[in-house]
Amino acid sequence: MKRVVGSPGTWSGVALRLSQCAFAAASTFALDSGFGYSNYSAYAYMDTVLTLQLVWSLYLACKDIFALRNKKDLHTPHDLLFFVVIDWALATLMFSGACASASLTIFFMWDVNLCGAYSRLACRQFALSVTLAFMTWLLQAASSFSGFWLLVSFF
Amino acid sequence: MKRVVGSPGTWSGVALRLSQCAFAAASTFALDSGFGYSNYSAYAYMDTVLTLQLVWSLYLACKDIFALRNKKDLHTPHDLLFFVVIDWALATLMFSGACASASLTIFFMWDVNLCGAYSRLACRQFALSVTLAFMTWLLQAASSFSGFWLLVSFF
Repeated sequence: MKRVVGSPGTWSGVALRLSQCAFAAASTFALDSGFGYSNYSAYAYMDTVLTLQLVWSLYLACKDIFALRNKKDLHTPHDLLFFVVIDWALATLMFSGACASASLTIFFMWDVNLCGAYSRLACRQFALSVTLAFMTWLLQAASSFSGFWLLVSFF
Repeated sequence: MKRVVGSPGTWSGVALRLSQCAFAAASTFALDSGFGYSNYSAYAYMDTVLTLQLVWSLYLACKDIFALRNKKDLHTPHDLLFFVVIDWALATLMFSGACASASLTIFFMWDVNLCGAYSRLACRQFALSVTLAFMTWLLQAASSFSGFWLLVSFF
């Protein structure tokens, strides 16, 4: 079995998945604690994507730990293709959600300065959530690339 | 020389680059014809990225045509790596710009229904520009993937 840092069935892979879970959970928490976030499509969309990300990362972390404890090989082309396709799709969704929310937050904070005028708008929570979402995306992109690199090495 | 559809130094590559130019130019035109677009960070950012995309695609279209006419080989690892890195960076920027602008347009059109209340806001132009920007991104992603595929085949 080839060892690529961060790929499925390695301890670095487990660490990467657990970090994704932590960042996605923190980002969701920051977003959900902001008053009225669900009135804005971009934030509602990011919330959905973050939940998807959390479920997927948790599932893969469990699968990795199970495979490591039972010495099961997750590096078959069939398994890898499945992980890589979903990883890439999720990374794209995560990036689009983070960009969309960042755009709306910048609009509120700088373009129309609504945060100063309307103090109930939770701009700080939104900004924190967007930052954490970008970090989640970076970690997800790292997982996607290591899986993809491993998959390419089969051809 | 390997023939991968859409890769540098092929006629399909030229067609892809020229389509990118056409879509990027149309998207820029639609955006710039919308009143006050530069007041919004997301649209100003997309405008910059679209200009970058236009310049890059036009440069590569010219380079491809020159290489085809003079039977020059563009498939050296050094050339390809340069194209692929910039292609990927530009595809990421293009996607982030399109998502950011889409988020703001959806906010104007549906979340606060500002388009109905404030008729000077050029929502239709913005929506058209975002659609064209997403098409530009798809074409750019196609170029990036074909270049990347060719590069991987060297290893």
